[in-house]
This record gives sequence, C-alpha cells and structure tokens, in this order.
Amino acid sequence: MQQGITTLVVVGVGLIGGSFALSLKRAGKVQHVIGVGRTLDNLTRALELGVVDEISQDLAAVASRADMVLLACPVGQMGRMMQAMAPHLQPHAIVSDAGSTKGDVAELFRTHLADHLAGCVPAHPIAGSELSGAAAAQYGLYEKRKVVLTPLPETSSGACDKVAGLWQACGAVIHRMSPAEHDSVFATVSHLPHLLAFAYVGMVAGKPDAERCFDFAATGFRDFTRIAGSHPEMWKDITLANRSALLDELERYRLALAALTEQVAASDEAGLASTFDTARTARVGWYQRFLREGQT
Amino acid sequence: MQQGITTLVVVGVGLIGGSFALSLKRAGKVQHVIGVGRTLDNLTRALELGVVDEISQDLAAVASRADMVLLACPVGQMGRMMQAMAPHLQPHAIVSDAGSTKGDVAELFRTHLADHLAGCVPAHPIAGSELSGAAAAQYGLYEKRKVVLTPLPETSSGACDKVAGLWQACGAVIHRMSPAEHDSVFATVSHLPHLLAFAYVGMVAGKPDAERCFDFAATGFRDFTRIAGSHPEMWKDITLANRSALLDELERYRLALAALTEQVAASDEAGLASTFDTARTARVGWYQRFLREGQT
Repeated sequence: MQQGITTLVVVGVGLIGGSFALSLKRAGKVQHVIGVGRTLDNLTRALELGVVDEISQDLAAVASRADMVLLACPVGQMGRMMQAMAPHLQPHAIVSDAGSTKGDVAELFRTHLADHLAGCVPAHPIAGSELSGAAAAQYGLYEKRKVVLTPLPETSSGACDKVAGLWQACGAVIHRMSPAEHDSVFATVSHLPHLLAFAYVGMVAGKPDAERCFDFAATGFRDFTRIAGSHPEMWKDITLANRSALLDELERYRLALAALTEQVAASDEAGLASTFDTARTARVGWYQRFLREGQT
Repeated sequence: MQQGITTLVVVGVGLIGGSFALSLKRAGKVQHVIGVGRTLDNLTRALELGVVDEISQDLAAVASRADMVLLACPVGQMGRMMQAMAPHLQPHAIVSDAGSTKGDVAELFRTHLADHLAGCVPAHPIAGSELSGAAAAQYGLYEKRKVVLTPLPETSSGACDKVAGLWQACGAVIHRMSPAEHDSVFATVSHLPHLLAFAYVGMVAGKPDAERCFDFAATGFRDFTRIAGSHPEMWKDITLANRSALLDELERYRLALAALTEQVAASDEAGLASTFDTARTARVGWYQRFLREGQT
C-alpha cells in the first residue's frame, strides 16, 4: 500500500484520533486500526461505528503490532502510554501524537522513547470542536486543516514524511516549526482564548442572577463561549504544559483589558472607537484570509 | 389592517431596521416604509433591494407621515433624531427603538419627547450579526428571537401592545423588564464579551509576531472573535451608554481572570480542572436550553 500503513494503533479514540482513523480508512491508507483507551464504553462504541477494527485497554499488549501509534489521548497521559509501548515497539514503528502543546511532548519522547527517537514525530492537527468521544469522529474533519509537525533533531526524514503523507491523505496541509515556536503561537491564538472563555462563563455562572442572564444570552454569547464547552481535563493538561507561554499571554491580556477599562472609566470616546476599530479591522482581515484558504 | 400600520419610518436601514421592515412587509403588517439615513448609497441600495419604498435624508420632512418610527440607528444619534421628529409627530404615532441599551434611551425619550411619552416604547430586539448595512437585511432574522420591551411608566398599554404585536408578526418572542434590569443583564451576557473580544483581537494584532499568529488561528479563534468584527461606532455608543454596569462587569471579570491566572501560576491542577469543569457544565447546560428554545 503506497505511503500507507498496515496497522495503526490509536490511543484515545475521540474526535481527533477517531477522525484520523476514519479519514485514513476512506483514503485506503490503513488496513487495520486498533483502538486503545481507558473507557470500555467508548471503545465499544468506536467498534460499533466502524471507527476502529479492534479494541484493547492494554497498549503494551498490542504495541508490537503497530506500524504507527497515534497518541490522541490527553497530553497528561502520554508519558505513561510511551512507557507502556517502549519495550514492544517494532524498529520501523512510527510514534506520533496529536497534542495541542509540543515542547512538553518533545520532552516526553526524549524521556520515554530515547532509543526510538528516529521514529518519533510530534504533531498537532489544528482541528477540534467542543465535542468529544468516539461518536464525534467524522470523515473530513481534517479537510484543508493545518497540521503542524515539530520533528526532533533525531527524527528521521522518512518518519516525518510518512506522517506528513498520512495527514495529507486526510486532506490536511502540513506546516513545520520548532516546538517552542509552536507553543508560543498557540498560546496566543488558541490556549489564551480558551482560558478567557472559561473564566468568563465561570464568572457569569457565579452571579446571583446567573439564570436571568443566561435567559437572554444569544448568538454573540453562543459563539464567544463555544470553546468554554471544551474538555476540562484536556485543557487542564494543555494549560499546565504550556504554562510559561500562557502566563506571558495572560499578563499581556491583563494589560490590554486594563487599558480598555481605563478608556471606559474615562468615557474616552475617541480611544474606545480607535480600540474597537483596530480590533475590527484585524478580525475582518483575518477572516477574509481564513475563508480564502478554504477554511470556514 | 388589523394590528398593522400604514406608514413605518425606519431611521437607520441596516441589519436591524431593514430586517424589521422586510419581516413586517412579508407579514402584511405595513403598507409603506420610508427609510431615513445619513448615507445616500446605503439608502439607495435599500430602495433597490425593496427593503424600503421611499428614502429620505431628512427625518423632519417625513416624520408627520409616520404611524410608527423605529430608531434603528446607533444610540448616539437617537437624541438628535428625536429632536428632529418631535415637532412633526402625529398624536397617535408610536416611537420605538432597537438600541442595545435602555436606560439611556429611556432618558432620551424623556428629554426630547416629553409631550409624547405615551407613544414611546423603548425596545431591544436580541438579534444581530457582525454584518451591517441595508444589504444585510433579511427576512426571518427575528424568527424565535427575543425582543425586550422596557416601557416607561407613561407608555400607554396600547402603544406597548402595538409594538409587541408587530415584533410578534416578525416571529419574535416578547419579554418586558425595567431599563435598569435590562442594562445589567446585557452588560453581563453581551456588552462585556464584546469588550473582551475587542481587547483580545487588539492584543494579538499588536504582537510583533501577529501575522504568524493569525496564520494558525482556527475555528476556536474564529468563533471567539466573531463579535470583535462588530461595528466600532455602535459599540463605542453602547459602551458609554452602559458604562456603569460595564465597569462592574469588567471588575468582576478582572477578578475571575486573576483567580485563574493564580491557578496557572501555582500549577494548581485540581483548581484548574474545577474552574474549567464549572464553566463547561454551565455552558453545556445553557446551550441545551438555547437549542430547546428553537434558537441556534
């Protein structure tokens, strides 16, 4: 099977891992998918839905059969998963991940798969949704989405190209950068807004008149808070994994909000109009580009 | 025409005013719509699109023909519009508005239409979009949306019921509350998130690596920032009109974000998981209710 693989082990059969498996199956790039997870209910559902062909709750028992292992579990579980597979991996097996942070995953690869680094390809597919679980898996999730590969210096170009090819078969566009650069960019455009949205919804929910407020929340609230419906454990892991970059962004935002609050307090008409106009111009420009790239 | 009106004057033929006109026309509740605005291009477009039947840049010249005037311009312009119409209004004419704040609009009615308060019905249709201009007007915008009426003590029940009936003919659901309660609730669920989104996009746009960041912004960023594409002048007006309630909300949010930042700084796993879980539970619960109400 050209550029394809025979056996894929997906650890964490949710939206990300499940959609990868489904998309590769449709593209004819994988023959057999083994789903590994902690929750038997979810694995059974994945099997029923045809997302995977076989299920296991014991990675060590199936790792030896993998041509590729995709770690699509929360980053906080990846270290243990790497430890479990390390003694069993075939020499040619590729290990990649779908974590939203890359500096810490690169570190985990070094710690737990030191003898296998040529086959380790840290990666981050930029796709997601507040949905989770096997039932959320879908064909086409990665169509025109970006996947960022952050290979280690030791990663073989063959492994890197193989992973790139599989993601491209899912419809994705490949980018490469260093783990540190990745983590800084995503602290800004993804991790910080998640924290801002969580803090906002938590604040509203804690108000004495929360129910009354929620009654009148509409489409602006809906969109602004969508990411506050994201998986708490996953986002706890991301937050801690990218803690340093996030603290920088939180401080930057604190200052921006303090400046805006000062404009409100001072009834600074010109200042407020300028702040809003700058933001609107940037957002409109960004969205036009986003649409031109075929994203929606 | 039962419950309908003959001549409607819409001041500000954009998304809100234009959609009200179109929806009433489709429902057969209005015979003639006069669009009033500052920009001839937009008025001409509204006429071409059939959103209005006649256009004017001079409210004083057409106000005497109105059975109802809807002020759908920015709140900052409403005072001048009321002054312009005051000498010309027929005794039975109803004046309503679509402003996002109600305490200040109630005050404007008192100041500029003191002799006509029985016909004044402050109102806020909860529908919007980052789109603006006559071309954004659409049938069905108000289908299942909420419209909040905040009648003055002097408002006649006849005028209030007439306005309620017209909005219901557009498919909307009517709620009534006091201007102060309205402004507090909307500071929380609408005005604050707009300010948070404007501040966020402005912060990103001001980074040295802004372009690189925007390159990797995806669907979470898209939804979180949609409201930062909103009309700067309108939001400057809303911010100033609801300044006091907004300063309360900004302070409340500052504290919430400081608490979350402290959890990040302390690597407080349990605290972060709890913060995120509380927010997620509230958001998921809210969204289920929102969908049950037929909103999307």
